[in-house]
Amino acid sequence: MGDPSRAPPLTRASVIEAHELIKEYVHLTPVLTCHTLDTIASTPQEFTALSDTPHDGLDVPAKPKIRFFFKCENFQRVGAFKVRGAFHALKRLSKEELEKGVVTHSSGNHAQALALAARTFNIPAHIVMPTISTPSKIAGTRSYGARIVFSGSTSQEREAVVSTVIAQTGATLVPPYDHPNIILGQGTMALELEAQVTALLAPSEGPRKLDAVITPCGGGGMLSGVATALLGSGIRVFGAEPSFQGADDARRGIAARERVTHVKSLTIADGLRTPLGEWTWGIVSDRSKVAGVFSVSEDQIKAAMRLVLERMKVFIEPSAAVPLAVCLFNEEFRRLVEREGGEEGWNVGVVFSGGNTTVEAVAKIFETTDRKEERAAGEVGALGEREVQDVAG
Amino acid sequence: MGDPSRAPPLTRASVIEAHELIKEYVHLTPVLTCHTLDTIASTPQEFTALSDTPHDGLDVPAKPKIRFFFKCENFQRVGAFKVRGAFHALKRLSKEELEKGVVTHSSGNHAQALALAARTFNIPAHIVMPTISTPSKIAGTRSYGARIVFSGSTSQEREAVVSTVIAQTGATLVPPYDHPNIILGQGTMALELEAQVTALLAPSEGPRKLDAVITPCGGGGMLSGVATALLGSGIRVFGAEPSFQGADDARRGIAARERVTHVKSLTIADGLRTPLGEWTWGIVSDRSKVAGVFSVSEDQIKAAMRLVLERMKVFIEPSAAVPLAVCLFNEEFRRLVEREGGEEGWNVGVVFSGGNTTVEAVAKIFETTDRKEERAAGEVGALGEREVQDVAG
Repeated sequence: MGDPSRAPPLTRASVIEAHELIKEYVHLTPVLTCHTLDTIASTPQEFTALSDTPHDGLDVPAKPKIRFFFKCENFQRVGAFKVRGAFHALKRLSKEELEKGVVTHSSGNHAQALALAARTFNIPAHIVMPTISTPSKIAGTRSYGARIVFSGSTSQEREAVVSTVIAQTGATLVPPYDHPNIILGQGTMALELEAQVTALLAPSEGPRKLDAVITPCGGGGMLSGVATALLGSGIRVFGAEPSFQGADDARRGIAARERVTHVKSLTIADGLRTPLGEWTWGIVSDRSKVAGVFSVSEDQIKAAMRLVLERMKVFIEPSAAVPLAVCLFNEEFRRLVEREGGEEGWNVGVVFSGGNTTVEAVAKIFETTDRKEERAAGEVGALGEREVQDVAG
Repeated sequence: MGDPSRAPPLTRASVIEAHELIKEYVHLTPVLTCHTLDTIASTPQEFTALSDTPHDGLDVPAKPKIRFFFKCENFQRVGAFKVRGAFHALKRLSKEELEKGVVTHSSGNHAQALALAARTFNIPAHIVMPTISTPSKIAGTRSYGARIVFSGSTSQEREAVVSTVIAQTGATLVPPYDHPNIILGQGTMALELEAQVTALLAPSEGPRKLDAVITPCGGGGMLSGVATALLGSGIRVFGAEPSFQGADDARRGIAARERVTHVKSLTIADGLRTPLGEWTWGIVSDRSKVAGVFSVSEDQIKAAMRLVLERMKVFIEPSAAVPLAVCLFNEEFRRLVEREGGEEGWNVGVVFSGGNTTVEAVAKIFETTDRKEERAAGEVGALGEREVQDVAG
């Protein structure tokens, strides 16, 4: 896709065009509702509170009225929205470009999405991955028929290997987020969500359309695509980020009016450790397109993820829980909904971006809680240790 | 509901009647398909194997062809199928009986289901629970407005407390599974599943209806209900049990032609630790109603549960994974499908019975695997380092 200037303009019409191009290759993922989560979101935080959640100096917790519509891209092919951008990128390549294949330097969901799209069109895919990638990710990507090319783990090392692959094969680079064709592809989910919610609300009284959509924001491809798709629709678009170790680069960049170009965060929302790119910064920092970006703590992400797993019975990766965490726990966002939604409240579309995690990873995330609960359950641990000492001594 | 002789006969017509009575109170839960799981099920076990799975002395692993249709009762109200039986039981009580309330001695999903149904009809519900019940279960049941009555943890102690409650209040006992009205209520899911699969398969070539349904079997209420609902439909009905510590009481009872009345198993499929009752034994042991009951090991249940979480992105409790484990790993069942399904294979309905577990419980189940995988990952890491040396050198 090399030259972004050849891509269609970043407009709703282009997203509609992208949707026509890719819809036979991607799932029309379902939209779910959950009465329990609506109730929790519509209850002031002090009553549902995470004990470590300060109210940002506000005296009275906000009392917004929220009805959720969850767009389940975790049920998408390869388990994440990334196939939308990957298929669109390939549909925009010429026959000659396609024949030479594609290359990318992602090791996450984008790699598997590109591998699937390449296999579908029967062209080579070269995926540059750090040697330290987890074996399951390597195996997963390889299972789609891609050629894995290993590199060092710094971005310079990876880019050098990508250049070598391009020189050797003539393959086209398909970046994970910072390209108009990726942005337009990811935006297609918003067209579906908009139509699905309208259909769901058709028989109901009260407001019959979405008031807002909130998506995770890492590199910003999805948020930019959704904002582009909904331009002029009257639906507000928001981004959600982890705040841990500065992963809230979009929020900070917007506040400082300057793009943050480096992020080094180990947030559990591992899909959101990436800073915005040049194209996505242009959209995300444009207030007329993205109405705001909000951030949440690790504990808030965990609490939201727990609710989705235990209450909704839907399996998501931590990154996918970040927008819900904002809706439930970010007082600034909740105050905004309270103010603008008023008595009637808001119909809020929340994107569950992906579900690619493992039971071991989930176990690790909730491990500490586990130990805490064990202690709470009667100091069984301490008693056990004493018993062991007795035996040993 | 005291006198079972007042209940409707155990026929498909009675299940249809039950469905009319309860359908405004329960969700029409979705039926999901999963191409990945179809492929795994249709691949001989040696290639997807759990290393500790013996082939029961068979030389060549079976090669059945299976297409799954998952009935998602984990998305049901209170997170499990139990609301069907509870609402039906209450709809069959007289006005006088209703006014005096209901009582049960379950501490699991049935307790919450009965509490919800009682609250819906605005009548008292007394739930007898052992004092050692987990706080989350007590809180969960209480949140539906039920009155919790504590007892000792043996069944004698619980039954004594139930008798006291009945003597004091005149409440009607609604047992968790061993009653015709409960059986007929649970059976309603099969009517939905049958119709949903027919609708899903309408546009397809090949066989357009279900060939078989497999459900978990603990007390046997659901299995009996589904078998009753599908009598004469031509759809075979199977049960699935854990084998750990003798929890496969139905299978053993059928083999010995005598009901096993006591089970003391700590299987992770904690909803299936109960032996069959008198009513359910009558149905489950009747070969013309239930075509077979198959059992699986703890590791096989875990493997099936992992696939549902990681691949389908659906959150289920361990008991709900047992039927899928049979389809994937029980060679006797697989050989049966291979033999009877032939070239065309079978469309198999699998009931995901519930999703009421916690992230801590999931963490505990997969804890050991975690450590194993970390060791394995360490070995791959070592290999990776060697490759890096090659590039660097």
